[in-house]
Amino acid sequence: MKRVKLVLEYDGSNYHGFQIQKNADTVQGRLELAISRLSGEKIAMTCAGRTDAGVHALGQVVAFDSSASIPGERWTMALNAFLPEDIQVLKSHYVKANFNPRFDAQSKRYIYKILRNKNRRAFYRNLALCNSENLDIGLMQEACKYIEGQHSFRAFCASGSSAKTFERTVSNCFLAEKNNWLTMEIEANGFLYNMVRIIMGTLLEVGRGKYSPAYIEEIIRSQDRTLAGPTAPPQGLYLKEVKYNEA
Amino acid sequence: MKRVKLVLEYDGSNYHGFQIQKNADTVQGRLELAISRLSGEKIAMTCAGRTDAGVHALGQVVAFDSSASIPGERWTMALNAFLPEDIQVLKSHYVKANFNPRFDAQSKRYIYKILRNKNRRAFYRNLALCNSENLDIGLMQEACKYIEGQHSFRAFCASGSSAKTFERTVSNCFLAEKNNWLTMEIEANGFLYNMVRIIMGTLLEVGRGKYSPAYIEEIIRSQDRTLAGPTAPPQGLYLKEVKYNEA
Repeated sequence: MKRVKLVLEYDGSNYHGFQIQKNADTVQGRLELAISRLSGEKIAMTCAGRTDAGVHALGQVVAFDSSASIPGERWTMALNAFLPEDIQVLKSHYVKANFNPRFDAQSKRYIYKILRNKNRRAFYRNLALCNSENLDIGLMQEACKYIEGQHSFRAFCASGSSAKTFERTVSNCFLAEKNNWLTMEIEANGFLYNMVRIIMGTLLEVGRGKYSPAYIEEIIRSQDRTLAGPTAPPQGLYLKEVKYNEA
Repeated sequence: MKRVKLVLEYDGSNYHGFQIQKNADTVQGRLELAISRLSGEKIAMTCAGRTDAGVHALGQVVAFDSSASIPGERWTMALNAFLPEDIQVLKSHYVKANFNPRFDAQSKRYIYKILRNKNRRAFYRNLALCNSENLDIGLMQEACKYIEGQHSFRAFCASGSSAKTFERTVSNCFLAEKNNWLTMEIEANGFLYNMVRIIMGTLLEVGRGKYSPAYIEEIIRSQDRTLAGPTAPPQGLYLKEVKYNEA
């Protein structure tokens, strides 16, 4: 029995999120089906971050145990042959038996993509938030700086979270503008439920002039979800990368 | 009764092509349904180029007659409210009563997109040809030059075409490489059935070293479809623009 680590990308548009569910098509469901078709094994899988319905991944990490005699890097091609085209394994190898994609993660990076053009919406409707409002990008960039640091992010956590502590350290949060695209990138040692989408929704309110950038500080201090902006929709969100001390 | 001209973009992934069909979901079917919902009119529509199943448009042009009292440029927003998100009207205005999007077109431009990376396939599977073979791009670019000019393109025309003449003038054909993308752009006064896809399939054979660039001349001269390469798949093809002397 050896532990397999996979790095994968998926277009979340057609799935009810990562986590396996009865009577719903999920990324985990498709992965476990592909593994059972390939190796005949019924495995239990853990992942780095359970993405919600409609959320995408550029570098999700999962791990499971297998006794199949498949060389580590061969799992990539072998599984892709059994996976739908919107879920693709990018890398695979064997890792130590106690590797846990979630608890061993040093940090995770998400991006949130906004298409700022009236054109190309037909193509990006499921892959970005399409928004052509007037936004003050400079103010939004200023607001990002208040997100960085070690804070209680309770105000940016959806209700129903099972988190025991709301303190997280955001090592990096910035917003880049390029052509018609606005991309928010955020890295932290952990994320609360809907945290990136609520931060994005709040930054949009700053861009509209509803909040000043410095008001972010007040929202953080309040620990009050009702002070932060609305939850931005799932289709702009991508789990970009999960970092580990050792691979 | 006034003639409305629409410029539209659509993601063709979920449609059985542009042209209306019984018992199949088509772009024209969706457009005519949206118009009837908006204005109560049952109209007959003509388009600049009938794209096949899975083919996209960045600037398809259609025209139809309406007696609705809607200002020309308002058709855009009004129709978008009734259209699915993967079909979007970009521009609308009234044109002269005898405007014909197909026969009045001076030239049309298509692009064909190839993603040359193993990553991001999950996102572009329906929006580009995903190909990471070793290709000699320089040779393909050289081959493009042989496509340009006034030729009989019979060797690049799928059987079943109703074309009376196979002569077309390609004013421009080039291949650009940028990051992981290869984009072929081609402009002509008209296109035969599957012409762009067969040209692309032939350029790929050149890239693989199967044909020399100069062999394109021979294929053209032969007027023999079996000498040209295979038809490239639909998902990389976009009708980019239709040009008219007067708008």
